[in-house]
Amino acid sequence: MGRTRMVVIGGDAAGMSAASSARRRRPASDLEIVAFERGEHTSYSACGLPYLAGGVVEDWHDLVVRTPEQFAEQDITAKVRHEVQAIDLDARRVTVRDLDAGRTIREPFDILVVATGSEPVRPPIPGIDLPGVYGLSILRDGIELRAAIDAGPKAAVVIGGGYIGLEAAEQLVNRDVPTTLVEQTPQVMNQVDPDMGELVGKAVAGLGVTLYLEEEVEEIEAGDDGRVAAVRTSARTIPADLVVLGLGSRPSVELAESAGIPIGPSGGIRVNRRMRTPVEGVWAAGDCAETIHVVTGEPVNYHLGTIANKQGRICGTNIGGGYVTFPGVLGTAVTKVCDLEVARTGLGERDLGPLGIEAESGTVESTTRAGYYPGAEQIHTKILAERRSGRLLGAQIVGREGAAKRIDVLAAALWNGMTVHDLVNMDVSYAPPFAPVWDPVLISARKLSEQITADLERC
Amino acid sequence: MGRTRMVVIGGDAAGMSAASSARRRRPASDLEIVAFERGEHTSYSACGLPYLAGGVVEDWHDLVVRTPEQFAEQDITAKVRHEVQAIDLDARRVTVRDLDAGRTIREPFDILVVATGSEPVRPPIPGIDLPGVYGLSILRDGIELRAAIDAGPKAAVVIGGGYIGLEAAEQLVNRDVPTTLVEQTPQVMNQVDPDMGELVGKAVAGLGVTLYLEEEVEEIEAGDDGRVAAVRTSARTIPADLVVLGLGSRPSVELAESAGIPIGPSGGIRVNRRMRTPVEGVWAAGDCAETIHVVTGEPVNYHLGTIANKQGRICGTNIGGGYVTFPGVLGTAVTKVCDLEVARTGLGERDLGPLGIEAESGTVESTTRAGYYPGAEQIHTKILAERRSGRLLGAQIVGREGAAKRIDVLAAALWNGMTVHDLVNMDVSYAPPFAPVWDPVLISARKLSEQITADLERC
Repeated sequence: MGRTRMVVIGGDAAGMSAASSARRRRPASDLEIVAFERGEHTSYSACGLPYLAGGVVEDWHDLVVRTPEQFAEQDITAKVRHEVQAIDLDARRVTVRDLDAGRTIREPFDILVVATGSEPVRPPIPGIDLPGVYGLSILRDGIELRAAIDAGPKAAVVIGGGYIGLEAAEQLVNRDVPTTLVEQTPQVMNQVDPDMGELVGKAVAGLGVTLYLEEEVEEIEAGDDGRVAAVRTSARTIPADLVVLGLGSRPSVELAESAGIPIGPSGGIRVNRRMRTPVEGVWAAGDCAETIHVVTGEPVNYHLGTIANKQGRICGTNIGGGYVTFPGVLGTAVTKVCDLEVARTGLGERDLGPLGIEAESGTVESTTRAGYYPGAEQIHTKILAERRSGRLLGAQIVGREGAAKRIDVLAAALWNGMTVHDLVNMDVSYAPPFAPVWDPVLISARKLSEQITADLERC
Repeated sequence: MGRTRMVVIGGDAAGMSAASSARRRRPASDLEIVAFERGEHTSYSACGLPYLAGGVVEDWHDLVVRTPEQFAEQDITAKVRHEVQAIDLDARRVTVRDLDAGRTIREPFDILVVATGSEPVRPPIPGIDLPGVYGLSILRDGIELRAAIDAGPKAAVVIGGGYIGLEAAEQLVNRDVPTTLVEQTPQVMNQVDPDMGELVGKAVAGLGVTLYLEEEVEEIEAGDDGRVAAVRTSARTIPADLVVLGLGSRPSVELAESAGIPIGPSGGIRVNRRMRTPVEGVWAAGDCAETIHVVTGEPVNYHLGTIANKQGRICGTNIGGGYVTFPGVLGTAVTKVCDLEVARTGLGERDLGPLGIEAESGTVESTTRAGYYPGAEQIHTKILAERRSGRLLGAQIVGREGAAKRIDVLAAALWNGMTVHDLVNMDVSYAPPFAPVWDPVLISARKLSEQITADLERC
């Protein structure tokens, strides 16, 4: 009886977690595992790229969780610079381009894991491919941007005010590079509501980043040397010898789609709760896979390292013969821009209309520690709850040191379908160095609970 | 029609929260509110006393949340230095000693709130009342201990290794006072399991505190000047000109008990979920009141500021005509000793036997941030879950900066009756400055989930 052959497409968090988890349950004598990675590296922290670029993380090797050599010790073959170009579901094989050798091979599989991840959005802006324009998506990008920052640029423009854009801007101002951030919507950090985004925008401007909102980038202009020299927006031209793109990402599903693997309404590959696609023997995990939003039950597609790692583990455990399911996501996320912390979970105001949900919100300003305790920092906490029922829908935090990780308590409350009325009394920890006696999370819940109760009593 | 008269016994967190919450719903024309406080101050942060004593909080006024003058603006009469000496349930009145005027008055009530709090345990150790021996229970204690520390003591002994003892020891070593801590059990911080307590003990010793475990204090010895000169334990005599007592606290229920208000098995005053005692018109809240443990359903009595504030609010809202209930507690608590952070929630190993619960535990050592991110600190996370079911029972954290507040996520999980299997996939936040991609909380759940699953699969 032959061994089962598992082929993994994509050698990062989801794919390699799947490989490792499957291996933990099935020995090499039973299951052969081969992973193909288009890039040069396996299993690295993409979320660490801004910190590598800015030099906060000195050595790029520190971002690599596991090398192909380390996977080999687990009897997992991980081949980098191998790009899967086609999946043949009938013949049960993939076509792989060995990028260095320049040849194409065919590799059979019994089990296929599609973990092709996501790719940065690159709109057709003239000049987007000029030298001096950097993305921040794969390890190679981080290494190259680091070299560019180390070279001492005169002025930088960051295009896009989401997580990557803001984290890149932080690194640039920390390195004393005059930095402008251009965002085409009216706020930075569209992952939070406008009122919270305004707080972020003000704080970012306070760090010395020049912020231009509601401006569209029309061209990235070249200088005489053929390198980037300026960014022209709908309102102005900004000189820059370094440009960083932070325009979001989309799931990499072309390969799966071409093969006939179903894509869901979110744009991600359809999977069941065990991470199997509708095609027998074909699994998907990570940024390329669709999942369910725990609050709404709707299909969604997020690109977050935590989700990729969890899904990879679940996928691999099931392939290994276990039984585990992925319950969905809340879209919990956090970021830091200098000493500013921003976090979110669940739904925001923009999500409500299309879902037909009516909500009330409560926003409070409080402190991260007892007001009298040294180092007490400002924290703004906003929560959204359904009208009448008081069911929690989402939460956002903007504050200084010690603020953002509190989002996890709100995520846990959301995860469990709590109402704000329950949340008020939840027994969270208190001591003056850690919180006021009413934790900001509870204060926001209390305010909203009282507001919703008052509405009910008026009826 | 006369006004209703509400009398509150005890002018701190629970009592004054009850007063304020009742006032918010019923105007002074409808409800008269009078509070009697034995001490000199109303509504102050008892948890801030160690920090006042050590000078981290400069001015004791900063610990006072609200003065009698401020309550007067809300039409709440708060009388300090007024000790309630008896409750007459039949006549609906209390006997009050005006400590300054030296006279006794009788005050009628329609509604009574017993918020007598807790008092420090003071075992009959010879010399416990000597000058130079300090408790750390009321604001007066904090002010006096501060003066004693400012005077530059030569050597201090802290008796008792719980929260107050450790926090006092922190303040003493921070002020360069050679400090010895004597604890009669085999570990400090009996609120956590022995293995976690050992980590705390090692860290505390590392701060320069001399630690003597399993030693009982037999006498506090006086010098020729009649002040404390040494502490004699079962093993040695330790010279000291300053002694701090941290021997725990018990509910102050004598007054209620003498009046015939029922006391529950936990030693606290029996109340229903709206904080009313079995006696019509008589309510209780805070340290003196019994409550229910959310995990076990058993009656318990904890002395924590968070609980007192919440119960006071619920008590007062109900008196005011609202309808709110207190769901119980987890015993979530946190403390800091220099840069060491300790937190706990739910049940510990010692609680299990008497309850007939069998548990498995998972302890992991991880980091507070991504390992490669500057400032990543050590964090030990331990969770207990029921055998087979995997239902979470409790959790403990010992770590450095950024570690302890994570207990709240575990408290939220416990609060909602989650299993470790659910918890593994919960969508908590991640970014390199805040957590590894698998948050320590999730790693501990993952470890325990895999352990419990492996046990089940072996069956």
